[in-house]
Amino acid sequence: MNTKTMSTQEVANRLVELCRKGQVLESQQELFAENVTSHEPAHSPTPAAIGKEAVLAKGKHFASLIEKRYSGSFEDPIVAGNYFSFVCKLDADLKGMGRVVWDEICVFGVKDGKITSEQFFY
Amino acid sequence: MNTKTMSTQEVANRLVELCRKGQVLESQQELFAENVTSHEPAHSPTPAAIGKEAVLAKGKHFASLIEKRYSGSFEDPIVAGNYFSFVCKLDADLKGMGRVVWDEICVFGVKDGKITSEQFFY
Repeated sequence: MNTKTMSTQEVANRLVELCRKGQVLESQQELFAENVTSHEPAHSPTPAAIGKEAVLAKGKHFASLIEKRYSGSFEDPIVAGNYFSFVCKLDADLKGMGRVVWDEICVFGVKDGKITSEQFFY
Repeated sequence: MNTKTMSTQEVANRLVELCRKGQVLESQQELFAENVTSHEPAHSPTPAAIGKEAVLAKGKHFASLIEKRYSGSFEDPIVAGNYFSFVCKLDADLKGMGRVVWDEICVFGVKDGKITSEQFFY
């Protein structure tokens, strides 16, 4: 087993790699720290999720809302110190919301090779 | 006078263009909205600045702390909807702090062609 701690760049690359394969929930399971926090914008009805269990539940809930995915992408990350950022796009039918086209900036914090925070700007 | 409202990409390009010329304060004067907000990380001793006057004062104060700038850069922005993000680096002697090497993710919100928020991750 390779126990070398991943750098921020390596964590960013791995997250994007898994998300591009459609393995978003698997990426969270693998890369998120136990104390991870997830913050939406202040105008969002979704409250912050605190802790890996809550953040994974949030991810699963969101995945369950997607009825049809027309397109989407995870762009290449930019990296600085313990943080990285990328653009995420989604064009999908969501349960109860109809078709949405989203385009957002995602920022992730990393500590000891694990993601400790995610925050979304849209 | 060209009164066409700039897109998020255009605002991002203009901010980076001016910052790369060393015109950081000028960029704030030109591009920041009257109600702009500026947020540092929770661990920072610097409180949030609310309103253009307060944000410009914060920028001026920071500029006054730089005694010697060894290097620094503003990387190309990534853009999504009303937000953009870029990596900013600084290697400088700061008054009372000695030499610091900073590497941060900056996220900016745009509305009606003006920057309404800035937030830093480091």
